[in-house]
Amino acid sequence: MNERDIIARLQETLARDAAGRSGVILGIGDDGAVLEVPPGQHLVTVMDTVVAGVHFPDTTAPEDIGYRALAVNLSDLAAMAATPAWATLSLTLPLPDPAWVDAFARGWAAASVGFDVALVGGDTVRGPLAVSVALHGLVRRGEELTRTGARPGDAVYVTGTPGDAAAGLEVCEGRLAADAAVADTLRRRFLRPTPRVVEGRSLAGVASAALDISDGLALDAGRLASASGVEIVLEADALPLSPALVQAVGEERGGQLALAGGDDYELLFAVPVEAQGALQAASLAWQCGCRRIGHVEEGSGVTLLHEGKSVPLPAAFEHFSSASGEAIEQ
Amino acid sequence: MNERDIIARLQETLARDAAGRSGVILGIGDDGAVLEVPPGQHLVTVMDTVVAGVHFPDTTAPEDIGYRALAVNLSDLAAMAATPAWATLSLTLPLPDPAWVDAFARGWAAASVGFDVALVGGDTVRGPLAVSVALHGLVRRGEELTRTGARPGDAVYVTGTPGDAAAGLEVCEGRLAADAAVADTLRRRFLRPTPRVVEGRSLAGVASAALDISDGLALDAGRLASASGVEIVLEADALPLSPALVQAVGEERGGQLALAGGDDYELLFAVPVEAQGALQAASLAWQCGCRRIGHVEEGSGVTLLHEGKSVPLPAAFEHFSSASGEAIEQ
Repeated sequence: MNERDIIARLQETLARDAAGRSGVILGIGDDGAVLEVPPGQHLVTVMDTVVAGVHFPDTTAPEDIGYRALAVNLSDLAAMAATPAWATLSLTLPLPDPAWVDAFARGWAAASVGFDVALVGGDTVRGPLAVSVALHGLVRRGEELTRTGARPGDAVYVTGTPGDAAAGLEVCEGRLAADAAVADTLRRRFLRPTPRVVEGRSLAGVASAALDISDGLALDAGRLASASGVEIVLEADALPLSPALVQAVGEERGGQLALAGGDDYELLFAVPVEAQGALQAASLAWQCGCRRIGHVEEGSGVTLLHEGKSVPLPAAFEHFSSASGEAIEQ
Repeated sequence: MNERDIIARLQETLARDAAGRSGVILGIGDDGAVLEVPPGQHLVTVMDTVVAGVHFPDTTAPEDIGYRALAVNLSDLAAMAATPAWATLSLTLPLPDPAWVDAFARGWAAASVGFDVALVGGDTVRGPLAVSVALHGLVRRGEELTRTGARPGDAVYVTGTPGDAAAGLEVCEGRLAADAAVADTLRRRFLRPTPRVVEGRSLAGVASAALDISDGLALDAGRLASASGVEIVLEADALPLSPALVQAVGEERGGQLALAGGDDYELLFAVPVEAQGALQAASLAWQCGCRRIGHVEEGSGVTLLHEGKSVPLPAAFEHFSSASGEAIEQ
């Protein structure tokens, strides 16, 4: 299988709908893609690279790598309240391997279900296994969510159940044992994070600020606080822990993983008092739910409360994402 | 130096003009960048990854890597007749090294001189040295150059002097000796290819088809022929060889390198008879010049003529770009 075959396979599996998606004037097959941004919309661009042995264990299945490469970028778009539209993919492979490429493409396709993302270009190169994705989304002018709008008095929310992914990584690496169903749930939360795209879009005009948590809730809360110039107060007792997490590691360590573990790809966001009703209405349809876990005050940094008293934040755990550094944006 | 310091350094060196560039609603500092495509314009997106030991020798200076990472993407935009606008960068580094990052940023900045490219996002990750760039440009609706428009009767042109880069790589690797000035010229043509952005833009409405030649003129001519459904006839005697190339390797091997060497990043394009005057007018201002090297016929593939007779095409040389595979687009 040569590079041309890889390309043909990827095209076949991933790009069949590129011509069908509105806005694709010219897709795969030329020096670049030509795209049309509809009037009244802004382009939102994100880019993330995942590297074998850094962002995921070397033993990760190619299907899971394909899923993750797209999902982590979808999660960034979700945090901007953008609708995914077009992707370019740069795939670095040590050897061309048809089975690997097919599995990768299946994983990518699984992550794109429901999001109408057209693959419009990119390249395949030889080298140590890594995947770069540039993802382009659309947002109505002025409706993008940023990190800078949190204000004192806002409530702070998180989607889903943070901490599961960190426990899932421990399961994958054989450092945590749990019964089969629990282990499978946690492993899946690490390998197959669900980008909160629908949730992010419905936060436009509702949330005052948002980001996706990839390096641990506490660390990312600090970024939100810093970008908005405020203090974020989190309540340890309010953290939404999944039954699987509690069963596997107990409540105390579950809380630590929820605060300091990584790879959750949930949304952390602030909501002004006057928008609480709008959030309740919007979040009724969210399968992942959301939980109020704190509030915004004047000040800086992140404070953690346990039974009303300030307690130290747990140190960030060693995990693949945190070891790899952070986005340039941050 | 931690990841945050890398980011600060890159921001400082590369992104200082991001806020100044029109169309950047939100640059570095959030989950994604928000960009405005002006009315009447289409977005052109390209993405290329360069990997150490694959696209350039492991000994390449970081400044040259920074230059190349941006230049190869600018070259793709040039081939589409697009004007560069915004870039995202994914930098994979084995170790954070301030001197390396500074040198990389200087090289990037050197490649962007005159092009007003704002760095608006991306990430830095730990791993084997590689650089992915997604570059976004703008083109007036319908003015993009593609590979598909070459028609029988069109003349075929190339910018600059192909073959220099392949000889330059041989110089870098110690496989070719030449006197100092010649060696330096050739090395520079490999390490610092000039993307033909101005030339590409002025080909809108003039050329019927274009691409940039990165894998060798003959191979890329074959892609143009295939995409347009035509045959391309090249005249070996018309190839524009640089004095440095001829001095270093002679005319015969110079011609082989011009046809089969890689990394030139010149433009290969077809021009209809009725647009020859427009090309002459447009190309007067080109420092690199252009040369008519063949024509388009009905048929398929590439034919090489030498003194009016068909001769075999030289086999592609082993070079970094060709070894690494090709773009998904192709």
